[in-house]
Amino acid sequence: MTKPDAFRLDPANYPFSILIGTRYGDLDTNGHLNNVAIARYFEDARVRFQTELAGGRRPVGARGLVAAVHIDYLAEGFYPAPVFVTAGIGTIGSSSWRVLEAAFQEDRRIAVCETVFVRLRDGKPTPIDDDWRALLESKRVEGPG
Amino acid sequence: MTKPDAFRLDPANYPFSILIGTRYGDLDTNGHLNNVAIARYFEDARVRFQTELAGGRRPVGARGLVAAVHIDYLAEGFYPAPVFVTAGIGTIGSSSWRVLEAAFQEDRRIAVCETVFVRLRDGKPTPIDDDWRALLESKRVEGPG
Amino acid sequence: MTKPDAFRLDPANYPFSILIGTRYGDLDTNGHLNNVAIARYFEDARVRFQTELAGGRRPVGARGLVAAVHIDYLAEGFYPAPVFVTAGIGTIGSSSWRVLEAAFQEDRRIAVCETVFVRLRDGKPTPIDDDWRALLESKRVEGPG
Amino acid sequence: MTKPDAFRLDPANYPFSILIGTRYGDLDTNGHLNNVAIARYFEDARVRFQTELAGGRRPVGARGLVAAVHIDYLAEGFYPAPVFVTAGIGTIGSSSWRVLEAAFQEDRRIAVCETVFVRLRDGKPTPIDDDWRALLESKRVEGPG
Repeated sequence: MTKPDAFRLDPANYPFSILIGTRYGDLDTNGHLNNVAIARYFEDARVRFQTELAGGRRPVGARGLVAAVHIDYLAEGFYPAPVFVTAGIGTIGSSSWRVLEAAFQEDRRIAVCETVFVRLRDGKPTPIDDDWRALLESKRVEGPG
Repeated sequence: MTKPDAFRLDPANYPFSILIGTRYGDLDTNGHLNNVAIARYFEDARVRFQTELAGGRRPVGARGLVAAVHIDYLAEGFYPAPVFVTAGIGTIGSSSWRVLEAAFQEDRRIAVCETVFVRLRDGKPTPIDDDWRALLESKRVEGPG
Repeated sequence: MTKPDAFRLDPANYPFSILIGTRYGDLDTNGHLNNVAIARYFEDARVRFQTELAGGRRPVGARGLVAAVHIDYLAEGFYPAPVFVTAGIGTIGSSSWRVLEAAFQEDRRIAVCETVFVRLRDGKPTPIDDDWRALLESKRVEGPG
Repeated sequence: MTKPDAFRLDPANYPFSILIGTRYGDLDTNGHLNNVAIARYFEDARVRFQTELAGGRRPVGARGLVAAVHIDYLAEGFYPAPVFVTAGIGTIGSSSWRVLEAAFQEDRRIAVCETVFVRLRDGKPTPIDDDWRALLESKRVEGPG
C-alpha cells in the first residue's frame, strides 16, 4: 500500500469541485459509506467536470472510454454529511489522459481516485485532437510536474 | 496504461470463481455495463470468496478493511449475459493482503481487479494472524512468483 | 396495509421466472436485502420477461413507460442466497397493462410487485397495437379473473 | 392508472423537504432518471425526514419496517439537475403509519410515493407508542382529511 502523493490530498490543487450528497443506500452493513458507493461519487464528479470542460456536451463515451479506475481509500466516510469531491487533469498521453480526484468529508480525506480515459475510434486508440488537448491542459491538477 | 500481466487473464489460474447475473440497472446511457457496476461484481465475488475462505464467517470488516481497489477495463460488457468472475490471493504482507480478480463475459476478458485489504485493530494496521495467513496462502493465484 | 391476493403468492400461477443472484451491495445497515434492491430484482425480471415476450427486442421504452410501481414487502430477504422472481401479465387496458411479479427466497415469500406500463406516442397515451396485445394476453398470470 | 390526489402534488403541503443531487449512475439506457433511482431518492428523503423527527436517532428498523412502497411516475427526470423531494406523514393506524412524498425537478412533478411502515416487536405488529404517535401527528401532510 503506497501513500498517495501529498499534492493529491490538497483540495486547493484541483480546478474543479462539487459537493455530493450521500444517500442512505450508500451505506453498507458496517454502517459506513461503501467503497463502491465512493466510486459512484468519483464517477459523478468526473462526468460533471468533463462535461463542463467540453462546454456542456457530455464527452464521456463520445470522446473517451474509461480504461482504468484506481481508488485508494484513506478513511471511513459516514452518512448523512455530504462529500466534497475535487477533480482535475493529470498526465496527458498521445491517445489517453488521466483524471485525478480526491474526496473529503468534513475534515477527513476519505479517498483519492485516478481514472485513465482512452480516446477510441472504431475500437482503436486514436490521437487526442488539439482542441480537447488544449482544454485538458487548461485544467491540470497543480502538482510536482 | 499498462497491460495486465498475462497470468491474470487466464481463469485457470484462480482458485475461486462465480457466475454473476447482470441486471438491467447495470447498464449506463451507452448501453454497456457501467464501470461502477463492474466494480460491484468484483465486490460481490470478493465477499463470497473470502467468506468461503473464512469458513462461512464474513471476514470483510471484521478482519480487513478495503484500502485500495484498482480496476483495469479491457472490453465492453453487455446485458443480459452473466459475467464470470474469478478470484484468488495475490501478495501477502505483514498486515495486508491483495485479492486478484478477473471478469469474463462469453469469450471476452472484460476487466481485472486488484484489491488491497489491511487488517486493522483500533484503527491501526496490525499483523495478520497465522490462521488467516495460512488460509490466504492456500488460495494464491497461480502466477510468476 | 392490505394483504396481496393469494393467487399472487403462488409461483405456479406465473408464466415466467428467473433466479436472480443477490449481491453484497444489496444489503443495508440492517443486514437484510434493502427494499430498493428488491425493486431492482423486480425491474430486472420485468425487462427479461418483456424482452422474451417481444421476441428479443427490448420493449421497455420503445413500447411502454413505467407509470407506477407498487411493491408489498412480506418478509426479510438475506444474502447470499439467490432470489426467485416470477412474472406475468395482469389486467390490460386500452393503452396500458400491468406486470405482476412475486419474489421468493428459499421457502419465504419476500415481496410482490405490480407495475403499470403505459404505451406512449409523442408523450401521449396511445392504444396498444393488436400484436402486442395478443402477446400480453398469452402470458397472463393465472388468477381469479 | 389513477391520478394522485391534487394535495400530494403541492410542495407547500409537506412539512419536510430536501434537495437531492442526481448522479450520472441514476440514468438508464433511455437517458432519463431510472425509476429505481427515483425510489432511492424517496428512500433517502424518508430516512432523513424520520431521523429528524426522531431527534437524530435513526428510527427506521428500530421503530418500523417498510411494508409497502407505492410510486406513481408522472414525468421523466433528467441529469444533472437536482431533485427536490418533499415528505410528511399520511394516515396513522394502530401499529402502522404512512409517509407521503413527492419529487419535483425544475418545474416538473416527476413522482409521488407512499410508504407504509409497520412497527414490529419480535416480528409481530405492535402498537405505536404515544411519543412516536405525537411526533407523527405533528408532521402530517396538509390534505383533505
